[in-house]
Amino acid sequence: MTRILGIDPGSQRTGIGIIDVDAGGRARHVHHQPLVLLGADGFAQRLKLLVQGLHALIAEYRPQEVAIEKVFMAKNADSALKLGQARGAALCAVVLRDLPVSEYAATEIKLAVVGRGGAEKQQVQHMVGLMLGLQGKLQADAADALAVAITHAHVRATAGRLGVDTKQAWSRK
Amino acid sequence: MTRILGIDPGSQRTGIGIIDVDAGGRARHVHHQPLVLLGADGFAQRLKLLVQGLHALIAEYRPQEVAIEKVFMAKNADSALKLGQARGAALCAVVLRDLPVSEYAATEIKLAVVGRGGAEKQQVQHMVGLMLGLQGKLQADAADALAVAITHAHVRATAGRLGVDTKQAWSRK
Repeated sequence: MTRILGIDPGSQRTGIGIIDVDAGGRARHVHHQPLVLLGADGFAQRLKLLVQGLHALIAEYRPQEVAIEKVFMAKNADSALKLGQARGAALCAVVLRDLPVSEYAATEIKLAVVGRGGAEKQQVQHMVGLMLGLQGKLQADAADALAVAITHAHVRATAGRLGVDTKQAWSRK
Repeated sequence: MTRILGIDPGSQRTGIGIIDVDAGGRARHVHHQPLVLLGADGFAQRLKLLVQGLHALIAEYRPQEVAIEKVFMAKNADSALKLGQARGAALCAVVLRDLPVSEYAATEIKLAVVGRGGAEKQQVQHMVGLMLGLQGKLQADAADALAVAITHAHVRATAGRLGVDTKQAWSRK
């Protein structure tokens, strides 16, 4: 069993999704939640909430590997900068705990979860709920975090069958 | 005397500049260097180098306040994202040490150091050398980090004369 922490970074709300996977890539839901950063007193304090929140979750759930969405493009330079800062703080929190990080593009996540790289965001969220046997509507950021964790579970299962050491491969991406 | 750490974040090289200032805003050079991140094995490892480098410098020089350049715009969304990630990791390192952070726009820095908001980058670097009595040509990133530290020194001296508590004011920006 490997425990995977999925992170969907955002400067207002960062999604958290934790799953356990076996060697065959079968996933079991462990935990999900949004880390709400909006209430914080200034941007630096928001990043602090994000880092402290991640450190608390890592201490509680002890994930062995981390998966995070790779961001190619944002709407504009200003939103890219804000998203980049949140992503940088999240990566900082993770690497300070010496966890290997894998990054996946949105199309890879859609392909792994829905089977189509061009799937809608809502389809991804719906499939995540089905795959993990969760009742009710998932909060969007947490669903995206679970989706990137599931993607990592698939990739490492495939890599396992091919005899590739994912831990090394992905932490270097 | 207050020790100020100036940071010029960059994903390949982050500039570090440390100065001491008295209540009148007079600055004395303490240390400057670039933190070179390019050699690291992957982007997450680069951010780790940045955070660990900052933590080591904070432990060694014990700054009381931190100043960092505010970034409004980058060339494009991709560079904004990379710059944002470096900036997020730097802010993460600083707030984890509970240091108050002030952010200054490029025009504020140029105004404080050269006296003109539209000054050239080279003029800023030249003036930083003159103001701190440094010999030889300063490495660009370290010069920019010293410039933002000098800006903070000026602003807090002015605020001191006006009876404003900068620590609170700027950490909330």
